[in-house]
Amino acid sequence: MFEIVKRDGMARMGKFEVHGKIVETPALLPVVNPKINTIPPRELYEKFGFKALITNSYIIRNTPELRDKALEVGLHEMLDYPGVIMTDSGTFQSHMYGEVDLKNEEIVQFQHDIGTDIGTVLDIFTEPFWTKEQTAESIEVTLGRTKVACDMKGDMLINGVVQGSIYQDLREDCARKMASMDIDVHPIGGVVPLMEQYRYSELVDVVMSSKRGINHSRPVHLFGAGHPMILALATLMGCDLFDSAGYAKFARDERMMFIDGTFRLSDMQSLDCDCPACRGHTLQELRRMEKKAKTRLIAEHNLYQITHELALVRRYLQEGRLWELAELRCRAHPALLDALRRLKEHQAQMELSDPISRDGAIFYTGPESRGRPTYLRYLQRIRDRYVPPTDKAVIFPECQGKPYSRPYAEDFDKARRAGFTPIVVSPFGPVPAELDEMYPLAQSLFPSIPDMETDTESERLTFQFLSAAGFKGAITPEQIPEDGTMEYDADLLRAKAVARYQFGIPAADALFRGEIQLVRSKKTGKIRNVISDGEHVLSMRAGDGLYTLRMEGAKRIVEAVPAPHMRVVVMDDAVPFVSDGRNVFAQFVLSCDQNLRPMEEVIVTDGKDNPVATGRMFLTPFEIPFMKKGMAVKVRSGSDD
Amino acid sequence: MFEIVKRDGMARMGKFEVHGKIVETPALLPVVNPKINTIPPRELYEKFGFKALITNSYIIRNTPELRDKALEVGLHEMLDYPGVIMTDSGTFQSHMYGEVDLKNEEIVQFQHDIGTDIGTVLDIFTEPFWTKEQTAESIEVTLGRTKVACDMKGDMLINGVVQGSIYQDLREDCARKMASMDIDVHPIGGVVPLMEQYRYSELVDVVMSSKRGINHSRPVHLFGAGHPMILALATLMGCDLFDSAGYAKFARDERMMFIDGTFRLSDMQSLDCDCPACRGHTLQELRRMEKKAKTRLIAEHNLYQITHELALVRRYLQEGRLWELAELRCRAHPALLDALRRLKEHQAQMELSDPISRDGAIFYTGPESRGRPTYLRYLQRIRDRYVPPTDKAVIFPECQGKPYSRPYAEDFDKARRAGFTPIVVSPFGPVPAELDEMYPLAQSLFPSIPDMETDTESERLTFQFLSAAGFKGAITPEQIPEDGTMEYDADLLRAKAVARYQFGIPAADALFRGEIQLVRSKKTGKIRNVISDGEHVLSMRAGDGLYTLRMEGAKRIVEAVPAPHMRVVVMDDAVPFVSDGRNVFAQFVLSCDQNLRPMEEVIVTDGKDNPVATGRMFLTPFEIPFMKKGMAVKVRSGSDD
Repeated sequence: MFEIVKRDGMARMGKFEVHGKIVETPALLPVVNPKINTIPPRELYEKFGFKALITNSYIIRNTPELRDKALEVGLHEMLDYPGVIMTDSGTFQSHMYGEVDLKNEEIVQFQHDIGTDIGTVLDIFTEPFWTKEQTAESIEVTLGRTKVACDMKGDMLINGVVQGSIYQDLREDCARKMASMDIDVHPIGGVVPLMEQYRYSELVDVVMSSKRGINHSRPVHLFGAGHPMILALATLMGCDLFDSAGYAKFARDERMMFIDGTFRLSDMQSLDCDCPACRGHTLQELRRMEKKAKTRLIAEHNLYQITHELALVRRYLQEGRLWELAELRCRAHPALLDALRRLKEHQAQMELSDPISRDGAIFYTGPESRGRPTYLRYLQRIRDRYVPPTDKAVIFPECQGKPYSRPYAEDFDKARRAGFTPIVVSPFGPVPAELDEMYPLAQSLFPSIPDMETDTESERLTFQFLSAAGFKGAITPEQIPEDGTMEYDADLLRAKAVARYQFGIPAADALFRGEIQLVRSKKTGKIRNVISDGEHVLSMRAGDGLYTLRMEGAKRIVEAVPAPHMRVVVMDDAVPFVSDGRNVFAQFVLSCDQNLRPMEEVIVTDGKDNPVATGRMFLTPFEIPFMKKGMAVKVRSGSDD
Repeated sequence: MFEIVKRDGMARMGKFEVHGKIVETPALLPVVNPKINTIPPRELYEKFGFKALITNSYIIRNTPELRDKALEVGLHEMLDYPGVIMTDSGTFQSHMYGEVDLKNEEIVQFQHDIGTDIGTVLDIFTEPFWTKEQTAESIEVTLGRTKVACDMKGDMLINGVVQGSIYQDLREDCARKMASMDIDVHPIGGVVPLMEQYRYSELVDVVMSSKRGINHSRPVHLFGAGHPMILALATLMGCDLFDSAGYAKFARDERMMFIDGTFRLSDMQSLDCDCPACRGHTLQELRRMEKKAKTRLIAEHNLYQITHELALVRRYLQEGRLWELAELRCRAHPALLDALRRLKEHQAQMELSDPISRDGAIFYTGPESRGRPTYLRYLQRIRDRYVPPTDKAVIFPECQGKPYSRPYAEDFDKARRAGFTPIVVSPFGPVPAELDEMYPLAQSLFPSIPDMETDTESERLTFQFLSAAGFKGAITPEQIPEDGTMEYDADLLRAKAVARYQFGIPAADALFRGEIQLVRSKKTGKIRNVISDGEHVLSMRAGDGLYTLRMEGAKRIVEAVPAPHMRVVVMDDAVPFVSDGRNVFAQFVLSCDQNLRPMEEVIVTDGKDNPVATGRMFLTPFEIPFMKKGMAVKVRSGSDD
């Protein structure tokens, strides 16, 4: 059972419950070779905090004394490991050494018999150099074997591996077929050669296409990915589980993992690492160490690099800043920078999952930042939902690295009095003055020295927008006539523009009906509440300049705009609880507006389109049908509150 | 006494000897408030490895019991600290609280009397908002006080603080006047407000202008810089010492330092830190801790963040990859990205110190990478030293993220047979085929998906070069005539082109005189040795594709090209040692070619321009006159070898 507790990009922070034990994701499972005890499993659990590991059932089965012991006392006792144990099936051995002398049924049964928590089908490893036909045929075999395994699994959980080489359509199709089977985890397989050859941009395509097909209620495991340098990016793309055999393998070869690569002890110029394993040692000491102690120390070092990075990934995910971390990490190698640049091609897919708002500042790290979903969403929304107050524009250059108008306040006023709409050119593209205190604009920080790509694109997008929005002309700030006399209400313009941006034009029209009164903060002077015809319909959050929807506002929208706009429809059984202010859980949702995004304001309705609550979306519309557990909508207030 | 042992960019890894104790630089000195013992100095030394610290002599002097104790037992015993102790003078207090009730002579004398290792003048803190006149006047006062301090210092070392607010000419001038005084360390002062206000691009200007004036035999201390996020960039710019009061101050305010910023405990979403202080604690536990234990834990955490980053800076410096680390770190905040972009304006100054070659791959991290000195140097050298074999060019697009021709080998051959010179468009600009195995071209890795800025600039630079180099036209690979019959020797073209690039055209002509024989590696087929008229004049290194100069080659250059080209002239006393193969030490150098760069091949001559050795430059020409210690040229072979 997998539950999402926090999200960012396509990343999920989750709780994966396996036989009563909880694995908090994103998590990495160290690979334990049952024949080589580099670091005892008990220490992995207690000292390093790894609550799950992987070992290889194929090796155990082919080693008589291990096989007998595992069958006799069970895998957990044999390894002396109290956490979750996943076993691999021999597939990777077939990739490395060719065919294995084993049948799928045998290895699935064996995994079951030794008490594995999560077993693996004997899937076929699709090599990146395979033809499409060869790949498609082998996927059929894997799917057949997976079906058999599902029938046999009993109380064991089962990995249903997504294969498909580098063919995105095959990956998506394989994942979709796996999604409908009774598997428990979606590993993405066959990617080790891509990582070994630094083909990270293709890895991005493989992960993103696989993600399109999977069942979102199951964790996604990127099989064989364990280098700290890839963890942030892979988590951002929605991978939940990782594993590392490298920490021990590299240690035996005297290779040390760092966040920026793996280095041979013999090539290193200095140690200068302050992880708990290395602290106090010099490079010379380490080199002179007796082999076993050296292997042990390097394996520990490698694990500390992993735990260190995983802690950072979790922290950034919690803070909603995982994009920033992934962008930083992708500068560690040009092949990773390629991956980041490739990710922009999947911007629209990313946008479906990316939360509508988050706390704190947003940092631009380079032109690649424009590949974040929030940039695409902003442009789509101002294209579809922005109504210019006048048809003449004044174009202001971006100021001081902020797409933000405060330094221009006087000029804005002059422009508006003369009947012009002020628009600031920013890395987001055009920023109409009415929107400049809203997320993501006001929260974003840019360097004041621009780069050519962002600079050029900012201008291009602005002129594209001016034309599409029907502006009849644009002038520079110097050209604003001095003697404007037009009256305007800047706050009302802002209040309406933000409502249109957030809820669409028809909904905003319903909310701003009749006489409008804006209640301002005494401290900041900013809009706090919108009262329409005496009804309090909206409140504006100080943090992100976006609205929370009140029940009165929800009713207006339901009356004026046909379903499914902004609706999440719940089963009748749930109505009493939700209207009482309880959260909406996924399994009680009948249907919902497919255009909703995480953190978006929603209207919870019953089957007859009566509004029963307002709240914020937590899951995506496409996740909800899959989820067996967890909150779909965080309800703010119910109709009975 | 300060000695440079390794270098990269303008960074120096050094040994600073103070009263018989060695401080290895770059180093950070934690600030110890003598009244608040957050972490005992003995622990700073033993547990955290800080071999030097700073404390405040002004506070000690103004606290009767501390003053009496310090005068009685000395500062080291009072603090129980065996390392190097630097003291500040009260200047920062004057910045914080206005005038201090103290004379320069008094505080200098007091520092001397309590046994400070490195004392500080009572300089005047130049605020960033000061006018230029005000700043210039206060610098005069600081210079006068510094002169007095130098006369009084005795066996104490003294800090001569570079001031000058944000005025680059004043900074440079102040540093130059300090350089001629008998001070021991060059702190750069008055920068804390810039850092507090995230004005990092101005900090870059301040550091770079100060560096232009200083005496290079002294360490440079960036006063008040202690946040891990700034250490890589500041070290790259040639700062050797740092200090941090923040680790303890922030701890008292419950603020935790991380590589990407400082976060308030109350704002944090999760702890997820695996430093030795935090390991095993949750955010909730930490918040609930009793105040003193909490302060202590956070102070330790902050110190671990600093030591962790400093270790990384040292590792990258050792590996010659500090540019990469600084570029990564500058993505942590848009204001730091601004600083990185500003650094490009100082590219020419940087280029004077940047080593001519280094081991290992060079990673491109974004368009900012083109601001590295090696890009400028490459363009200057092909402009001045490249001779086109023919006057018609074929322009090849960059391939697979490498400015490297191997995939084009057949097309290159076809082009050359048809009388064309193949040129690859790369992020470096134009790469003539003859140069493509040479540092930095062959060692560089780029993403295969280009960004607009680098893409546009690559083309612009290529067309600029074609015109300047006298090419009469350029075609695309598809336009190469099939039936070329021109004969050419690709290796000889390469051998000559690299020699011109490295030593200049006249020197290369002298080296490639008469009959040329190229000795190739049996294994790789690449050029190894150049024999000219039977004399072995050059060897080509496999690592970077550049030459080492043999004595026979050196003699040819001395005969053909007038001094000072490539010369380092040593005193007569040193000649017997150097001609015997010993390294050249700075204090024995009489003069040298001002165009030499670190790691460049040089010819050591006596006063009569007789070559006595060949070797590689280690210091820069402008450092040599200042250095009292350390190797200037690493000699490969002497004339008597």
